Amino acid sequence: MNSPLDNLAIELPSWAFGNSGTRFKVFGTPGTPRTIEEKLADAATVHRLTGLAPTVALHIPWDTVPDYAALARYAGDLGVRLGTVNSNTFQDDDYKFGSLTHTDKAVRQKAIDHHLACIEVMNQTGSQDLKIWLADGTNYPGQGDIRGRQDRLAESLAAIYQHIGAQQRLVLEYKFFEPAMYATDVPDWGTSYAHVSALGERAKVCLDTGHHAPGTNIEFIVAQLLRLGKLGSFDFNSRFYADDDLIVGAADPFQLFRIMFEVIRGGALDDDSTVALMLDQCHNVEEKIPGQIRSVLNVQEMTARASLVDTDALAAAQEAGDVLGANAIFMDAFYTDVRPMLAERRAAQGLPADPMAAFRDSGYQDTINAERIGGTQSSWGA
Amino acid sequence: MNSPLDNLAIELPSWAFGNSGTRFKVFGTPGTPRTIEEKLADAATVHRLTGLAPTVALHIPWDTVPDYAALARYAGDLGVRLGTVNSNTFQDDDYKFGSLTHTDKAVRQKAIDHHLACIEVMNQTGSQDLKIWLADGTNYPGQGDIRGRQDRLAESLAAIYQHIGAQQRLVLEYKFFEPAMYATDVPDWGTSYAHVSALGERAKVCLDTGHHAPGTNIEFIVAQLLRLGKLGSFDFNSRFYADDDLIVGAADPFQLFRIMFEVIRGGALDDDSTVALMLDQCHNVEEKIPGQIRSVLNVQEMTARASLVDTDALAAAQEAGDVLGANAIFMDAFYTDVRPMLAERRAAQGLPADPMAAFRDSGYQDTINAERIGGTQSSWGA
Amino acid sequence: MNSPLDNLAIELPSWAFGNSGTRFKVFGTPGTPRTIEEKLADAATVHRLTGLAPTVALHIPWDTVPDYAALARYAGDLGVRLGTVNSNTFQDDDYKFGSLTHTDKAVRQKAIDHHLACIEVMNQTGSQDLKIWLADGTNYPGQGDIRGRQDRLAESLAAIYQHIGAQQRLVLEYKFFEPAMYATDVPDWGTSYAHVSALGERAKVCLDTGHHAPGTNIEFIVAQLLRLGKLGSFDFNSRFYADDDLIVGAADPFQLFRIMFEVIRGGALDDDSTVALMLDQCHNVEEKIPGQIRSVLNVQEMTARASLVDTDALAAAQEAGDVLGANAIFMDAFYTDVRPMLAERRAAQGLPADPMAAFRDSGYQDTINAERIGGTQSSWGA
Amino acid sequence: MNSPLDNLAIELPSWAFGNSGTRFKVFGTPGTPRTIEEKLADAATVHRLTGLAPTVALHIPWDTVPDYAALARYAGDLGVRLGTVNSNTFQDDDYKFGSLTHTDKAVRQKAIDHHLACIEVMNQTGSQDLKIWLADGTNYPGQGDIRGRQDRLAESLAAIYQHIGAQQRLVLEYKFFEPAMYATDVPDWGTSYAHVSALGERAKVCLDTGHHAPGTNIEFIVAQLLRLGKLGSFDFNSRFYADDDLIVGAADPFQLFRIMFEVIRGGALDDDSTVALMLDQCHNVEEKIPGQIRSVLNVQEMTARASLVDTDALAAAQEAGDVLGANAIFMDAFYTDVRPMLAERRAAQGLPADPMAAFRDSGYQDTINAERIGGTQSSWGA
Repeated sequence: MNSPLDNLAIELPSWAFGNSGTRFKVFGTPGTPRTIEEKLADAATVHRLTGLAPTVALHIPWDTVPDYAALARYAGDLGVRLGTVNSNTFQDDDYKFGSLTHTDKAVRQKAIDHHLACIEVMNQTGSQDLKIWLADGTNYPGQGDIRGRQDRLAESLAAIYQHIGAQQRLVLEYKFFEPAMYATDVPDWGTSYAHVSALGERAKVCLDTGHHAPGTNIEFIVAQLLRLGKLGSFDFNSRFYADDDLIVGAADPFQLFRIMFEVIRGGALDDDSTVALMLDQCHNVEEKIPGQIRSVLNVQEMTARASLVDTDALAAAQEAGDVLGANAIFMDAFYTDVRPMLAERRAAQGLPADPMAAFRDSGYQDTINAERIGGTQSSWGA
Repeated sequence: MNSPLDNLAIELPSWAFGNSGTRFKVFGTPGTPRTIEEKLADAATVHRLTGLAPTVALHIPWDTVPDYAALARYAGDLGVRLGTVNSNTFQDDDYKFGSLTHTDKAVRQKAIDHHLACIEVMNQTGSQDLKIWLADGTNYPGQGDIRGRQDRLAESLAAIYQHIGAQQRLVLEYKFFEPAMYATDVPDWGTSYAHVSALGERAKVCLDTGHHAPGTNIEFIVAQLLRLGKLGSFDFNSRFYADDDLIVGAADPFQLFRIMFEVIRGGALDDDSTVALMLDQCHNVEEKIPGQIRSVLNVQEMTARASLVDTDALAAAQEAGDVLGANAIFMDAFYTDVRPMLAERRAAQGLPADPMAAFRDSGYQDTINAERIGGTQSSWGA
Repeated sequence: MNSPLDNLAIELPSWAFGNSGTRFKVFGTPGTPRTIEEKLADAATVHRLTGLAPTVALHIPWDTVPDYAALARYAGDLGVRLGTVNSNTFQDDDYKFGSLTHTDKAVRQKAIDHHLACIEVMNQTGSQDLKIWLADGTNYPGQGDIRGRQDRLAESLAAIYQHIGAQQRLVLEYKFFEPAMYATDVPDWGTSYAHVSALGERAKVCLDTGHHAPGTNIEFIVAQLLRLGKLGSFDFNSRFYADDDLIVGAADPFQLFRIMFEVIRGGALDDDSTVALMLDQCHNVEEKIPGQIRSVLNVQEMTARASLVDTDALAAAQEAGDVLGANAIFMDAFYTDVRPMLAERRAAQGLPADPMAAFRDSGYQDTINAERIGGTQSSWGA
Repeated sequence: MNSPLDNLAIELPSWAFGNSGTRFKVFGTPGTPRTIEEKLADAATVHRLTGLAPTVALHIPWDTVPDYAALARYAGDLGVRLGTVNSNTFQDDDYKFGSLTHTDKAVRQKAIDHHLACIEVMNQTGSQDLKIWLADGTNYPGQGDIRGRQDRLAESLAAIYQHIGAQQRLVLEYKFFEPAMYATDVPDWGTSYAHVSALGERAKVCLDTGHHAPGTNIEFIVAQLLRLGKLGSFDFNSRFYADDDLIVGAADPFQLFRIMFEVIRGGALDDDSTVALMLDQCHNVEEKIPGQIRSVLNVQEMTARASLVDTDALAAAQEAGDVLGANAIFMDAFYTDVRPMLAERRAAQGLPADPMAAFRDSGYQDTINAERIGGTQSSWGA
């Protein structure tokens, strides 16, 4: 069996290479991709320097192309594969009051059809996962019928699920709040779990690490969903307050360590695991490509630290009721500096020992800054 | 079919009449009951004045008596019935590191046996519900195996559930935190739902309104659990920050209104509903009996307001995407002063129009202050 | 002395009439103003129907015009006055890493100069308040020097303050988070208070009701700032989670009641009060003009309820340690339906008894929908 | 000038060696001290093994003795000194509705007198700081007059402050909530800052790391209070949700690192600093003496890591707007394993390289378990 580090692979979101921001301002930067092909080139650079990011997630319609099979070949030539397909039901005016939950059957059907189109993209790209994150919800009490929206959601999801292929999965993401501010239609893991359980075996939960209430114990949810066999995928990022979409591990590295410990504990990095690890971040003020490199390195570092926990000694301390002893075993792994070991490991794999420095020295950023002149920089708008 | 107000009945917790407090101090008060019989007398007073509280929940071992059938008759003579039986696995030294989740099989069995003893109490009192709230959890990362604790919990619950009678139910409460401060073993509705779903039809979720993370939309959970057929009971109270156990409706009356709206919307006050409504509060600084009277009146008032929502007009506004119109219909019911109507309703039922004043004028408090001298005042300690 | 209701006046923000949204989507609507003149027309409509909103706040540069004196006359002709001038240091690329706190002296000077330009606008419009809300902050630990940023902020504010006229005020707003996600440079009332105290008498704190951590007792801050003589103004809105900018009173009407009670208690609606009340909201999914009407009515209703508190009886109950009695006196005012009284009051003032209905029946929305064709709808972009 | 590590000294709270718990249960343990002398012996053991904890804080009346000068000599013989004196106005029945803020002048005077008695203890022990943490507050809206309570608090504090000696300080702690659940009279740093600023030079703020709303940036407050010259002392502990009083650094070590970075940045570990560092924790389920050892080691480790930040390089990256570069410099220090260096440092000082192991091997716990039989174990009750 491979080690957790051997099996670690982190999918990159195509949109992380485009511009993003807050409702107050989106700052543009030189070199930002104008096309999905340029996003793939940036993502492939991350993988080439780290060996950690073999796949790239698409977002439809932001990454719409006429020929997805050609796009898959293009990615392959760059050394990466196309991964999860993410749907979008939050930027069309028709979805102002909901998509899969809308009171108007025509709008629901439009949203369902969008997902069927995404499945068709998956068929052409060979993607495994259709990821559904819904912006559906309401801003004011009384604005919508909370219960009725759930019933319509269940019906819409069922209509989509029956088109999910035998090798494909529907992954339903939950989010505590935003953009809906009063009631979100899939606000917590329980709701997502209840829906995917009703759908069937190939429906799973997506856990975004930034989508919880303050104080939520996320590693508990990881452990629980793995126990229930319903953890489909992760969206990694970090946060201090809301869905900040900061670099994973930047806000609370110890939390990331605890999550990776439960990931390993629950078998999600075993050889036969189907759990997908992905980033979902916004680099609003920092450089995008190094931001993605830093992110996958953070996940790797915490995976390495979590792998160091002496689980036999830990179990013994736990059974003995030795609170400080158990905690010390746990913390000892966290406090161990794994960076030299990982640098050696990279070198042994023919990778740069220091991917951040390698990127800086590569001249890649200068090249794209010079070449990507004109056109429209990619962002959430398209 | 009866109206929601006709069907409204709110169970009182025996322990609300005893002393309670924070970790810093428990203040005693004159007249505090020394025995379960005196608690029942106080509870019966609340029911006599409001007509809203026909049953009283027991807590074992705090309310242990030699003869439960006799206790049930005693209650009956006072005009109330014995209700939910609440177990206690948090005050015995053996449970320092867990009860149903403990690593030591002997401790788990002790905790299971305690629940079987509670079921035996139910058999004698005719109680329907065994309510399980677990203090189990850990204070430090590494102290316990999050996943293993879930597996043991599932096993322990199954052992208890097989003794639940055909007319009985197991109700599993969840709580965000406290007394465990790092990882709680049943922290959210999703965990409780997953466990009771695995157990069977007669296992349900208990929703305590004070047991959620900041910002949680509680009425959403109410709607969802009713939709899933898994809402067993409520523990009503209110909170500004943590599990404050304040008088229900005192902190956010509009939230209570929204909850009661979903209670009605989901059928939990229909004639055939099995959802149990109960208080779970601590009167740390205010008088206890009037505190309970105020609480049941608050629930009644918000039920009355929620009943006033013009649901046809609301549905029309929702379908029209009329956000302000729908919200206005909703708020109009909340802002309507139902107190005169409820006073008339009470008078028509032969109840005091103003139960708070009636209690004050009754002399009951003076009587118990004078009579309940000596002995040990009831509290959480026993 | 006038009553609190007599003295109630709520400033409207010009930007509430333009389009707004979340980082995910800004929905446009028919009739949205293209110019500040059209915003003023909408605002004047709110005032004409409610009598509550005599002034309109400007945002520079969104509301830049060549001749502010002419704009003031235009407003006057519509029946309103120009109020607070709000600066903007968050949408220029130079401010990506800060404005008044930036490490680069040239950027700081640019931001200072922008505020001096705003003061010049005030001189022409006769506005009293320069309101400063800063987006300054950092997203990642280490990105900025927390302490150094405070020192530079103090220096920049002092440079601005010395241009504040004898009849003018500098009002410094604080905000818990967003758009900065790790460290905000003015995150809490304490920071704003420390800065304005250092500046002088004509520097005050602006309290935005949506800019606090979960669970914060806002009425306490109101009471404290009034006690310290440093409450300059309010930005009213409501929230369930973050800075949602929903209609004031929509999320927690009882909180608004408690705030208005402390406003009255602290003298902020006395005849000689200088505290300014203002809305700061976003109508993302609801109609904008009725959204503003609803908002000022909500403030009025809660002011009316808060005025009903029997403060003598309340003080007596408080001194007697009668917790339930004091709370009942407080709640009785909250639960009283003041809407009929306010409708009569409006009629007596020659205002529509039901301003929402009056707007709907006025045909104003249809007119602007028809007339405001072409051009660029106003939004936060300019 | 000494290094931050050289100047690091952490005061231990006497009560950390007694039993503590939650409102649900206090677990006792063998060897728990029965007297202040035994607490001092335990504290001295921590200092002997770590060299980090030269002083011990007293809590009055829990640590009341007839002769404080004798107690000071007793401590001296053990190798430690008596430090901060903590008052207690939350366990007397008279304080049910407040102490320094009470509406009844007699109760306020009683609370003032208690503080004067504490100052008298300080005079005898040579303690520098009188620390005031108030449980004062209200549980229900309307229960108290928020504004009036502030005015009375100011008056009471002034009465105490005038007895503070020329070499003494009054340190006012703030706390977000608990035991008061609606309105706390000193809930935030701004309130404490406003009061101590009004008192004078020898009044300072105490920052307890567990006393903030969710999401609060604590290092910002540290930096701000140091900038304002008003940070008097720390109460260190850690938390996941409320005031959990867990071992400092256990919940979020990176946060402790950031705090210690600002402590150093702001000069609080300079030779002439007057900022006092103290623990305030509860060891509810873990062993107490090793819990304190672990705590002071955690503070030392994070101080060591924070000392490693290359501040010149950091400043250069910050000025260049190099977000990722600055963050990397910051994180590099955090991720460096300082434990071997600290072990060497200890050995060079004649201390055990591994204080946790040294305690385990010392037999101290066995000795006190055997000797401390009978009597009443210390706890918050006395």
